[in-house]
Amino acid sequence: MTETPLLGIDIDQDAGRSLFEQVYLAVRGRILSGGIPAGTRLPASRKLAEELGVSRTTIVAAYDQLIAEGFVTSRPGSGVFVSDVQPVEPITPGQRGQTIRQDRAIRLEPTPKETAVRDPVVRPFQPGQLDARLFPFRHWARAVARAARSDPQSLVLSADPFGDRLLRTEICRYLGDWRGVRAVPEQILVTAGSGEALEICFLMMTQPGDRIGLEDPGYPQIRDFIGRIGLDILWLERDEHGALPPSEGRMPKLVFLTPSSQFPLGGAMPQARRGAFLAWSQRSGGLLLEDDYDSEFRYSGRPVPALAASDETGRTLYVGSFSKIFSKGLRLGFMVVPAAMIDAVRAFLRAYDGKVSAAPQRALGLFMAEGDFYRHIRRVRRHYGERRAALIDRVQTHLGGLVGFEDHSAGMHIVLRLPDDLPDMAISQEAARRGLTCPPLSGYCGSEDRLNGLLLGFCSFTIAEIEAAMPNLSAAIDAVVRQRGQAGAP
Amino acid sequence: MTETPLLGIDIDQDAGRSLFEQVYLAVRGRILSGGIPAGTRLPASRKLAEELGVSRTTIVAAYDQLIAEGFVTSRPGSGVFVSDVQPVEPITPGQRGQTIRQDRAIRLEPTPKETAVRDPVVRPFQPGQLDARLFPFRHWARAVARAARSDPQSLVLSADPFGDRLLRTEICRYLGDWRGVRAVPEQILVTAGSGEALEICFLMMTQPGDRIGLEDPGYPQIRDFIGRIGLDILWLERDEHGALPPSEGRMPKLVFLTPSSQFPLGGAMPQARRGAFLAWSQRSGGLLLEDDYDSEFRYSGRPVPALAASDETGRTLYVGSFSKIFSKGLRLGFMVVPAAMIDAVRAFLRAYDGKVSAAPQRALGLFMAEGDFYRHIRRVRRHYGERRAALIDRVQTHLGGLVGFEDHSAGMHIVLRLPDDLPDMAISQEAARRGLTCPPLSGYCGSEDRLNGLLLGFCSFTIAEIEAAMPNLSAAIDAVVRQRGQAGAP
Repeated sequence: MTETPLLGIDIDQDAGRSLFEQVYLAVRGRILSGGIPAGTRLPASRKLAEELGVSRTTIVAAYDQLIAEGFVTSRPGSGVFVSDVQPVEPITPGQRGQTIRQDRAIRLEPTPKETAVRDPVVRPFQPGQLDARLFPFRHWARAVARAARSDPQSLVLSADPFGDRLLRTEICRYLGDWRGVRAVPEQILVTAGSGEALEICFLMMTQPGDRIGLEDPGYPQIRDFIGRIGLDILWLERDEHGALPPSEGRMPKLVFLTPSSQFPLGGAMPQARRGAFLAWSQRSGGLLLEDDYDSEFRYSGRPVPALAASDETGRTLYVGSFSKIFSKGLRLGFMVVPAAMIDAVRAFLRAYDGKVSAAPQRALGLFMAEGDFYRHIRRVRRHYGERRAALIDRVQTHLGGLVGFEDHSAGMHIVLRLPDDLPDMAISQEAARRGLTCPPLSGYCGSEDRLNGLLLGFCSFTIAEIEAAMPNLSAAIDAVVRQRGQAGAP
Repeated sequence: MTETPLLGIDIDQDAGRSLFEQVYLAVRGRILSGGIPAGTRLPASRKLAEELGVSRTTIVAAYDQLIAEGFVTSRPGSGVFVSDVQPVEPITPGQRGQTIRQDRAIRLEPTPKETAVRDPVVRPFQPGQLDARLFPFRHWARAVARAARSDPQSLVLSADPFGDRLLRTEICRYLGDWRGVRAVPEQILVTAGSGEALEICFLMMTQPGDRIGLEDPGYPQIRDFIGRIGLDILWLERDEHGALPPSEGRMPKLVFLTPSSQFPLGGAMPQARRGAFLAWSQRSGGLLLEDDYDSEFRYSGRPVPALAASDETGRTLYVGSFSKIFSKGLRLGFMVVPAAMIDAVRAFLRAYDGKVSAAPQRALGLFMAEGDFYRHIRRVRRHYGERRAALIDRVQTHLGGLVGFEDHSAGMHIVLRLPDDLPDMAISQEAARRGLTCPPLSGYCGSEDRLNGLLLGFCSFTIAEIEAAMPNLSAAIDAVVRQRGQAGAP
């Protein structure tokens, strides 16, 4: 086991770069260049600190960063070793006397290669995932730096529990221009994704035992959360125009709807049906919770206005998210609070531990104010539209006779409908064995009669990646067809 | 009503500043300098855009920013007017036909003066509030800019659902050095404040009807959340050494504890009592949830180690937060997941909509790695210690004979104990009338026998502010003493 003295690292006390960064970059460079072979032990932090004339903290921090990125590995008692680009081996927990097995460590931590991409691996055709590779990282970093320069406090504090005022002003402008929703900044509650907005609605407006109306099929996460907090679910009846308002029995406190693009089936709720839900809301006193999750992604025709846009009575809580159209990692979403409920929401927030960070809010406000946000949406929509067309084309080529689907020319995934003798669960499992993530439609169904199909996402995959994955999907379906044949099924 | 042409604004297409910023800063400067008197109507955005040769979006964005900051006011149909430094008047909601009354708008929106401070107004002696004025905004902005420069993706993406690896590594170092807790980065789950960590524990490990053991007195928020999600509360018995482990009846799934500094009474749990809880946990199969919320704030003596530090069996879920020691607005906290539960937590997160933003994580990791974080804690602790001493001194001067309190020389507030004939609720209300926020101790009590006292926070108030507020507190108490006298109470 050789040891390198790491002599000749150039430390400039007055450089623009911090000492930490200089040490980190120098060692990292040596490793990448092969200047320090794998298995080499790095000098003890104390020793290197003396050598370079910097504080030991600086060296430890640099080593920690290199450990974090998988370039080196720490072995307690023996030192820090240049990694041979294997998954990060965890430090053993010490005193607590529990060691984490290497194989778990492999499952837990991204390999350095994955770390380089940063985005958690997304397998074709995982739905609901934007393509993080299209994110304008440099532009965004500039917006953040600008927010930091012009108003450092805005990175850390929000003057208002409802969120940054500039962001809320911009959200109002966006809602007016894109969604036909008129709102004032006082009505906008910035939340940690749409998830927190929904949780606030459920926690604030219901108590255990209350009923919530849900579309069927719909989001499993919402069904789970509602169950965990002791609420009852009323599965809404549906006809060819989508979900129907509750007509009899104990009325729900809230009805959750996706009117612009039903999740997961796609398709917009007709105006008449929207009117029926608004009428139900006024009749029963129940509220409507509109999740407008990906309405920007229409690839032809005109945008479908939000339900809230046609609500004159303020009985619709509109929830939006930036996770699908911009970035999931920022965790930003919002709710449009009907004016009459603003005080109630403020009162609730006083006893509620809010989850949204101030850090990204001003930067996003600037990003929207300066138009970069809209340029980005137009750009990704163009890409998503091409990928969608490619996916549909390949589906028709490879699976034409077998499957059907409705074309809503919108959304982030398509839904393949399968014949009854090809259960979606089985195909989804075969697809998983072939490196694909195609959730079964039946998994989104709550009531008894389960729809049979597959969700295929297309947003986060290039056309080449889609083409490469299609044969695996065909193979998965063929495998199930064969099994059925052998089993002597009709 | 005069109108200014705003001629002579200098726009430099090639300046480092964006056009938006140039327009915004120019108009803002004119208003601040009195160059444009209050009530003046600004030119229509289209007109000004032509005048300056920039896009209309840029002007609208600049106006929005000025509206957001209260420098100008928009009146639909009539234009944008220079504000006379009154609270922002909201745009009327239009189509939806709801107008928000001006008085609500006043209550809702900070005045420009408050906006300048940015932190929501904190009234003396509101407890649990750090002093945002001490935050190292410039240093932090540099850390953010450095994260943006060296790794723009880290502002937007986290490679791991558990959070940024550098931050998790630094949290482990912090826990080892400061709290005696040995953990590896694989065990650290970064959350949106400690609140999300607790909610994840409750949602993941319980179902409606399960029992949760709570200290009495304790956090009202946690009591409320537990009630809202349909869990039962078991109030733990207490003796002079604090809460006692459950001894009989249906055992709780989780027991929530604040061993380093009991909330709100203060004081650390003795080692023997910690052992008793660990023994209970092993006996009953229940888990311990340790909230280590402000353990850095000890003003004399040595830090009290965490309960998790003495747990050899991995039955303690340790929850920490950066909201009290660093910044509430960043909304960052964490949980130390026992190694044996890591896979279970990862599985839960797949169906859970996480709330923590990637935006501040890498920057905080750098801030910790480079020592700025620890310098900041030492600095605020020095201030808080002085403020605490001043508060205690003034309490003894003004209220000496009347009230008592235990000195734990730790925490962010002191608890005044009141004689039974002076109910804390009444005094708290009188204090509120005099501009103070002193929550009644009885409000933190869950079971029948309610303690009588007041919480006085000292962290976010200068010694001068504390001195200025003391007479109001005395007056509040005197008022209640008089009322009692008149009521002929003993």
